[in-house]
Amino acid sequence: MHNDLIVIDGLQYSNWNRAIFKQLREGGVTMVHVTIVYHEQIRETLLRIGEWNRKFEVHSDLIMPVKCADDIRRAKELGKVGIMFGAQNCSPVEDDIGMVEIMRELNLMIMQLTYNNQSLLATGCYEAVDSGVTRFGQQVIKEMNRVGMVVDMSHSAERSTLEAIEISERPIVISHANPLSFHDAKRNKSDTVLKALGDSGGLLGFSLYPFHLKNGSDCSLNDFCDMVANTADLMGIDNIGIGTDLCQDQPLSVLEWMRNGRWSKSMDYGEGSKSNADWPKPLSWFRDSRDFPNITKGLIARGFNDQDVAKVMGLNWLNFLDQGLQPQTVVR
Amino acid sequence: MHNDLIVIDGLQYSNWNRAIFKQLREGGVTMVHVTIVYHEQIRETLLRIGEWNRKFEVHSDLIMPVKCADDIRRAKELGKVGIMFGAQNCSPVEDDIGMVEIMRELNLMIMQLTYNNQSLLATGCYEAVDSGVTRFGQQVIKEMNRVGMVVDMSHSAERSTLEAIEISERPIVISHANPLSFHDAKRNKSDTVLKALGDSGGLLGFSLYPFHLKNGSDCSLNDFCDMVANTADLMGIDNIGIGTDLCQDQPLSVLEWMRNGRWSKSMDYGEGSKSNADWPKPLSWFRDSRDFPNITKGLIARGFNDQDVAKVMGLNWLNFLDQGLQPQTVVR
Repeated sequence: MHNDLIVIDGLQYSNWNRAIFKQLREGGVTMVHVTIVYHEQIRETLLRIGEWNRKFEVHSDLIMPVKCADDIRRAKELGKVGIMFGAQNCSPVEDDIGMVEIMRELNLMIMQLTYNNQSLLATGCYEAVDSGVTRFGQQVIKEMNRVGMVVDMSHSAERSTLEAIEISERPIVISHANPLSFHDAKRNKSDTVLKALGDSGGLLGFSLYPFHLKNGSDCSLNDFCDMVANTADLMGIDNIGIGTDLCQDQPLSVLEWMRNGRWSKSMDYGEGSKSNADWPKPLSWFRDSRDFPNITKGLIARGFNDQDVAKVMGLNWLNFLDQGLQPQTVVR
Repeated sequence: MHNDLIVIDGLQYSNWNRAIFKQLREGGVTMVHVTIVYHEQIRETLLRIGEWNRKFEVHSDLIMPVKCADDIRRAKELGKVGIMFGAQNCSPVEDDIGMVEIMRELNLMIMQLTYNNQSLLATGCYEAVDSGVTRFGQQVIKEMNRVGMVVDMSHSAERSTLEAIEISERPIVISHANPLSFHDAKRNKSDTVLKALGDSGGLLGFSLYPFHLKNGSDCSLNDFCDMVANTADLMGIDNIGIGTDLCQDQPLSVLEWMRNGRWSKSMDYGEGSKSNADWPKPLSWFRDSRDFPNITKGLIARGFNDQDVAKVMGLNWLNFLDQGLQPQTVVR
């Protein structure tokens, strides 16, 4: 069965190169949602897309762009890794509602409304107060619904997330986070949020970033799979997937960019601290994309049947994107 | 006395041309704070500054740029109208703390943290929920304090305004608004805000924009001067001035830009409504800048003594800017 698995990673931000693309293929990854920007604005986002277009040209034997959900199936058939663009902040839209459609035309398929801080659209999970989805945010969600761009609330605060689920006419995702009940972190999500997400047909991608895990870098595969099982009970087996948050081979400067953008004069350490400012040590059982089979094995060992393993490893993401990337033809 | 008055208008956004500059001089205006941008971002702000530089060149017999508070006195001596740049939104800073100093170096002397909607810095007065000053906003206020750029909360929501007063190490302004007690409008300010503003050494500029006035375009000069007197009692005579919000000869398209920026697909009517979408009819006693002497006369008739009239008409603004535009030399 395992060679037939469609494996989807709901988020990576790696220092992309040919070796990493090969690892993705070796790990059996069919499609990876790649973060193309954190805080980059329009012009810089175009720069990133241009860089990806060059990669698609140079590494066309290994990777291909995902321009619709069927491209994921096509990648599987061709033995290539599908690359789906996403943004971890709404900076590619800047202050312009018209940029939503334009970015979607450029294959930006998924966008977070916030990244830790307050954005023009909603509140991030690091702000002291969460005022929910803003006036502009309400319009952007509606527009994302219309053009088939997925709303991602991974880095958003609780009220904003609940409001986004409510406002969005289509299910949304939390592409890379874990339950707060598993590990207490600003980035993890309450049962209230996860329940609302599942009930609305949304999807959670489980994060393998040590800061989001019980015991951090020492989190065991057993504990991880227990969390998956418990969350399946809470949200439903059709509403969970993987979103590793793998940030491979990135220098510290990239972590600092993620955490500080251009907004801070003093160093913000985000999920780390002054004495623990660097990238966390990776998990022993998930060092890079070659270790995806370890997750599959772990789920089987935990008692998931083949069908459910297939769902968690990729089918749920695929089904979600089949709907989510379709432009709306009829407004309700 | 009246020819000696230093008259300062704490905000105008007119369709600037030679005729309007002449009217300013005819009305005895020493300095006007001109809005150079509403929602314009960095590149567009530079465009606006470039256009102003050209105006300074062409109309150098009538106007001059204000690059420090002493330039206001210089304008008075030379019989010219001083032009001080301001922004009604934080869009010229975009997402970059480094832009605060750069914009100040380009003589952007005053900046609103929000314009009606949520910004990256704080909440505007049209949002349903006000979460106060954001993480980025706290840094920007500190930086504005450092470089001598005045914080303006005219279009901000209550909690955000109170927090800005508290966070700012220097007094701030509400350059163009009126007391809520005079006229109930989203843009007008509660006694709580006005008291906190006065107590902190801040300044309120009274607006002559009909939407901010009791009886709108039919507001009488008497009622206006009563409001000034009552607010002097509340805030102190040293903490009030004028900020007419005069938007002269602007087409409807500019009003729509102010109200909608690039954020809305449907028309937002702001302070107006669908059936009242246009610019309001001007006051009979303040049609344009030539009518400044009417305000002076009104205040005298209301019983203000010469010294207090001078304060309200310009001296308070001048004293405020003497401090407010100085870069900080010692951080407390």
